[in-house]
Amino acid sequence: MTVEENLQQLGIILPEPPKGVGNYVTWVRTGNLIVTSGQLPWKDNLMLWPGRLGGEVNIEEGYWAARQAALNAIAQLKAATGDLEKILRIVRLEGFVHCASGFRDQAKVLDGASDLLVSVFGDRGKHTRLALGISDMPLNSCVQLGLWAEVSG
Amino acid sequence: MTVEENLQQLGIILPEPPKGVGNYVTWVRTGNLIVTSGQLPWKDNLMLWPGRLGGEVNIEEGYWAARQAALNAIAQLKAATGDLEKILRIVRLEGFVHCASGFRDQAKVLDGASDLLVSVFGDRGKHTRLALGISDMPLNSCVQLGLWAEVSG
Amino acid sequence: MTVEENLQQLGIILPEPPKGVGNYVTWVRTGNLIVTSGQLPWKDNLMLWPGRLGGEVNIEEGYWAARQAALNAIAQLKAATGDLEKILRIVRLEGFVHCASGFRDQAKVLDGASDLLVSVFGDRGKHTRLALGISDMPLNSCVQLGLWAEVSG
Repeated sequence: MTVEENLQQLGIILPEPPKGVGNYVTWVRTGNLIVTSGQLPWKDNLMLWPGRLGGEVNIEEGYWAARQAALNAIAQLKAATGDLEKILRIVRLEGFVHCASGFRDQAKVLDGASDLLVSVFGDRGKHTRLALGISDMPLNSCVQLGLWAEVSG
Repeated sequence: MTVEENLQQLGIILPEPPKGVGNYVTWVRTGNLIVTSGQLPWKDNLMLWPGRLGGEVNIEEGYWAARQAALNAIAQLKAATGDLEKILRIVRLEGFVHCASGFRDQAKVLDGASDLLVSVFGDRGKHTRLALGISDMPLNSCVQLGLWAEVSG
Repeated sequence: MTVEENLQQLGIILPEPPKGVGNYVTWVRTGNLIVTSGQLPWKDNLMLWPGRLGGEVNIEEGYWAARQAALNAIAQLKAATGDLEKILRIVRLEGFVHCASGFRDQAKVLDGASDLLVSVFGDRGKHTRLALGISDMPLNSCVQLGLWAEVSG
């Protein structure tokens, strides 16, 4: 199965890659690595579930927000490569979860991103991960993800 | 314009690259990548505006602190390369902002670093960025930056 | 001295590399880089000193927890390479310390990891470092470490 076939089977149409909110670009390629800027759960110019996990946002909402942010990250990879088949490996997911004090289920939230990456890229989607709870997030986003991928020549 | 000409035009004299505050080094080169340790807003051995954004430190102060930390990061790149013309691309800025609860303008603070990188390196300075709010920072610094750069052979 | 000789002299027997706690893998190799997932202070399936620095956990305990997490990171490098002599350089330690508000000694805690890396790898263990205070950590762990290493052909 190709990545595009996986997307189709999952019923996913990739969004436009979101623009940044400051003086930076949304991806850079260096050698065979692509790195994205921090991705937020934008969907059609709205941010999904702003707020804190363990506060206004529950785990299921956080899971879907993380999935949406990962979808935006995949859209950045598509913009960077033109063809997602060129992605050899998702190297690393950096997951930051906006939390109320005492929240401990960052892993369950970030699985929303990780599950999507594995569904879309198969074995090539098996990535390393950081999972951290952050007290304050730009624009009150409930998650922020950074993604590193290896790309073919 | 070369990087050194840009620095001159901006009236910038690069500082000495600050030393670390633990058992680590301030930069490493691996392949064509240079990565710096976390840079703080040291200026002449004083730390600019210690404290939290949204608390003792306002956005304008945070902007200038981020600019100073970026200047220190550029000084690390100079130490690593001997010649800033060898920097092909600023790949990534990792920006951590020390925040009081509820602060949401991490992007405005970190633009102090991003604006400087683009002014100094031009198109080669266009970087990806993470922007995160951190509750507690070593030495009460208001910002900490990590920088990745691609360097020529 | 080889790395294995250093380990022996330090009286260290490498643990099994801990498994992750979500849908991700514990290390990836891309080119000559290995990156680990976030490492926690697991020891024999128990987590050392859960809680916050500046709260339930004191600096000395945090130091030893950071050392244990670094030991687990080295175990991941061993799994990735089969032979730690293939590690040319520890490139980067990303250190996140779980803190009560106002804790400022992240560097002293993370030296537990940094000191071990330098003891085990010698000059090849001299790394860059990020040191950040995090308000909420998965599973209430007191530290989380990410490690990047350069490996030979």
